[in-house]
Amino acid sequence: MEKNIISLVPTGLEGEIRLHIEKVKRQLEPGSALLVSGNVNVFYTTGRFFRGYVWIPAEGEPVYFVVKPRVYSGGTEKMEYIRKPEQIPSLLVEMGYEMPRKVGLEESELTYNDTLRLMKLFPDAEVFDSTPVLRNARMVKTPMEIELMRYDGERQAQAYSKVSGLYRSGMTDVELQIEIERELRKLGCLGYPRVAGNLMEINMGSVLAGDNADTPSPYEFAMGGAGADPSLPGGADGHVIGRHETVMIDMNGSFNAYQTDMTRVWTAGELPELAEKAQRCSERILRTLEREALPGREVCELYFRAVEIAEGEGLKDYFMGHSQQSGFIGHGVGIELNEQPPVAPRCKTVLQEGMTLALEPKFVIPGTGPVGVENTYVVRADGLECITHFPEAIQKFDGATDQQG
Amino acid sequence: MEKNIISLVPTGLEGEIRLHIEKVKRQLEPGSALLVSGNVNVFYTTGRFFRGYVWIPAEGEPVYFVVKPRVYSGGTEKMEYIRKPEQIPSLLVEMGYEMPRKVGLEESELTYNDTLRLMKLFPDAEVFDSTPVLRNARMVKTPMEIELMRYDGERQAQAYSKVSGLYRSGMTDVELQIEIERELRKLGCLGYPRVAGNLMEINMGSVLAGDNADTPSPYEFAMGGAGADPSLPGGADGHVIGRHETVMIDMNGSFNAYQTDMTRVWTAGELPELAEKAQRCSERILRTLEREALPGREVCELYFRAVEIAEGEGLKDYFMGHSQQSGFIGHGVGIELNEQPPVAPRCKTVLQEGMTLALEPKFVIPGTGPVGVENTYVVRADGLECITHFPEAIQKFDGATDQQG
Repeated sequence: MEKNIISLVPTGLEGEIRLHIEKVKRQLEPGSALLVSGNVNVFYTTGRFFRGYVWIPAEGEPVYFVVKPRVYSGGTEKMEYIRKPEQIPSLLVEMGYEMPRKVGLEESELTYNDTLRLMKLFPDAEVFDSTPVLRNARMVKTPMEIELMRYDGERQAQAYSKVSGLYRSGMTDVELQIEIERELRKLGCLGYPRVAGNLMEINMGSVLAGDNADTPSPYEFAMGGAGADPSLPGGADGHVIGRHETVMIDMNGSFNAYQTDMTRVWTAGELPELAEKAQRCSERILRTLEREALPGREVCELYFRAVEIAEGEGLKDYFMGHSQQSGFIGHGVGIELNEQPPVAPRCKTVLQEGMTLALEPKFVIPGTGPVGVENTYVVRADGLECITHFPEAIQKFDGATDQQG
Repeated sequence: MEKNIISLVPTGLEGEIRLHIEKVKRQLEPGSALLVSGNVNVFYTTGRFFRGYVWIPAEGEPVYFVVKPRVYSGGTEKMEYIRKPEQIPSLLVEMGYEMPRKVGLEESELTYNDTLRLMKLFPDAEVFDSTPVLRNARMVKTPMEIELMRYDGERQAQAYSKVSGLYRSGMTDVELQIEIERELRKLGCLGYPRVAGNLMEINMGSVLAGDNADTPSPYEFAMGGAGADPSLPGGADGHVIGRHETVMIDMNGSFNAYQTDMTRVWTAGELPELAEKAQRCSERILRTLEREALPGREVCELYFRAVEIAEGEGLKDYFMGHSQQSGFIGHGVGIELNEQPPVAPRCKTVLQEGMTLALEPKFVIPGTGPVGVENTYVVRADGLECITHFPEAIQKFDGATDQQG
C-alpha cells in the first residue's frame, strides 16, 4: 500500500509552530538548549504527536528526532529518524550544532529513569528543569490556539444544550453522565482529557449530584464525589438523582488538541434559598473577576477577591467544598486541563493578554448538592473574554415539572 | 454533615491486601523498605486510592501516610495523616521503625523531581528502583483478582454481544465506537483504562476499520489507526465503514480496578480468502498457545511460536501490522492495560500459574482491514484458561445482509 507524503510539522501549521518554538527559545540562555520528549510538549512544538524528541537550541533551528512512526517526509523542518536517544548527540554534531552548556529536560514530567537516560547524552552540560519553560510558553495562547479553544467552547455548549432533554425521572447520576458523554462524542469530543501530573485521574468528566458532592476526593479537582468504584474515586456514584438535588455537569470539552472547561447546574425540583443564594454569589464572583482580571495583576488577587465575596455573603463554609475545601478557584487550561497558572493564594504569576483561565467558584450545600458556574476565559486588555457561552442560571430538567415533590 | 467510619484498607479486603503486601515483601532484602506513591501501586497495596504514601519494610507492618482525603478511621492498619512526605522519617522513628539501609522508589513511574524529593528523606540509604518489585508482585494474580477479572470479561462479552445490533449502514467508525462506548458504560465500565508509561494515550478503546488499520501509530499499541484528530493518533478516523471492510473492536474492559482485553472482528459484507485465512490463522495461534503456554516456559517462546505459525502460512507480511509491524503479540493485563510480561522476543520471564495474559495475534490485510482475535487468559497448571468468552469467528453486522455490495 502506498503512503501519501506527510510532513512532520503539518502543512499550513509551519508559522504557528514557529511561534510556539519562538516562545520557548526566548526563555533560553545563550548556549543552552531543550530536549523535549513529553507528549504534550512534543505536540506543542510540532503540531503532531510522534514518538521521539524535539531539540530546541537557543541559537539555530529546532531538530526533530523521530523514533516512530516512520511516515514523514517532504517537510521543511530538520528531521532525523533514530532508534534510540543515544544517537542524538553525534547527529547534532554532524548537523553542525555545538554541544550546549546547559540542557533542559522535563524533570517534572519525565520519569526518573527516562530523565537519567537523557542526562547521560550530555555529560558535560549542566541540566536544568525545562518544565517551567514549556509551561510558560504554553500558558499564553496564540490567536490560532484561542480559535481552537473557541471552537471547543461552542461544541461543549452545544452538548450542554442537550442535557435538559437527556434527563429521565428515576435516572442515576451515572446514567445521565453516559448520555452526556454520548452527545459530546457525537459532536466530536475526543474523550481523552489530558492532565498534568498523576493527581487527576478522570474519564470524560464529572456529574455530581446531591450530597455525593461532599465526598472528599484524593485528587486535585475542585469538587469530589465517591465515584462508581473505589478504584476511581471521583464524580458520580450511581445513586438515583433526587428531585431536590442539584446536578453539577462538568464534562470534558476536548474537540481538538485543546479543550475548554465549563460547569453548569441542573435540578428537577425546587431548591432552598441557601443554594439559590450561593449560585447568585458564584455568578457575582465571575462578573467581578471578568472586570478586574486585567493584565498586570497577580493571579492570587483573583483568588482573594473570590474568597472575599463568598465570605462577605456568609458562604465561606460552603465555598469550594464543605467537608473538604479546595485551595484554588480556577486554573489555566489548554492542551492540558490543568495548565498554568493555578488561581490560588500563592500564585504570583502576572496576568497577560492571551492567557486562558477556567474560573470555577463553586459551593457545596449540604442536603442539596453543588452549585456554581465555571467558564473558560481569555485574558484581554480590558478584562476577561468568555468563550463558554451557555446560560448560567440553574436549569430545570425537561420532563421534571410534572413530577411529585 | 456527619461522615461514616471508613477504614483505609476496605473492610473485608484486609486478607487480600495482606497477600499483596506479602508478595512485595518477599522480594525485599533484610533491612530494606519501599516507599510507594504511584497511583496503581497505592491501590494495589491498600485496596483504595488515596493521595499519600505506603511504607513497606522488609520487616514489620506497613504504614500508610495519608495526605488526603482525611476521612479514614477505625481500620486496624497503621496510619498517619501527613501534610508532606518530609514528615515521614521522624514519624517512622517515633513508631519504632529503624531507618532502612536500602529504600525502593518507583523510579520508572515517578517524575524525576518527585523521586529526588523522596530520595532526600533517606540521605543515608541506598536508593533502588522499586518499579520491577511492584510489577512483579502484580504480575501473578490472587484468586480474588482473577475473580474480578473474570467479572470484567463477562461484562465485556455482554457489551460485545450488542455490537452486531448497533451497526447501521452508512455509519462511520467513530459513530459505531460511540454506541459501543455507551453500551460498555451502561454495563458498568468505568471508562478509564489505566496504562503504564506515557506511550499509550487512548480514550475507551479502538474501533479500527479497513485500511485505517494500516496507518502506523506512534504509540505502543498492537495496531494503529489515524484517529479522529492529529492530537490523538490512534484508532477510528471517522470514515464511513465500507461494506467489504473488516471492523476490529478492541474496547475497554475495566468494570472495576482490573480489566480484561478482548478483540473481535465484524463485517457488513463478504471478505477475500486472504482475510479469512488470516483470521483462521489467528485462531490457530491461540489454540496452540492455550495448550503450550505452560508454567515454567519462557514468555518469548509464545512469541516465537506465534510468528512461526504465521510465517508457516505465508502470512508474515500481514502479521501484527503491514506498513508497520508491532514487536509483541500480547502482554500482561490487570490494573494496568499493559502489565508484565510483554509477550515479545526478548522476554525471558518464566510463566507462572496465576499470571494473566492478553494474547492478540492480529493481521492487517490491505484493502480489507484488520483481522484476528484477542483473549485474556489465566495461566494454569495445564495451559491457559480463557476469561473472555465470546464467539471468535468474524461476525456479520445485523441489518447488513440486505444491502447492496
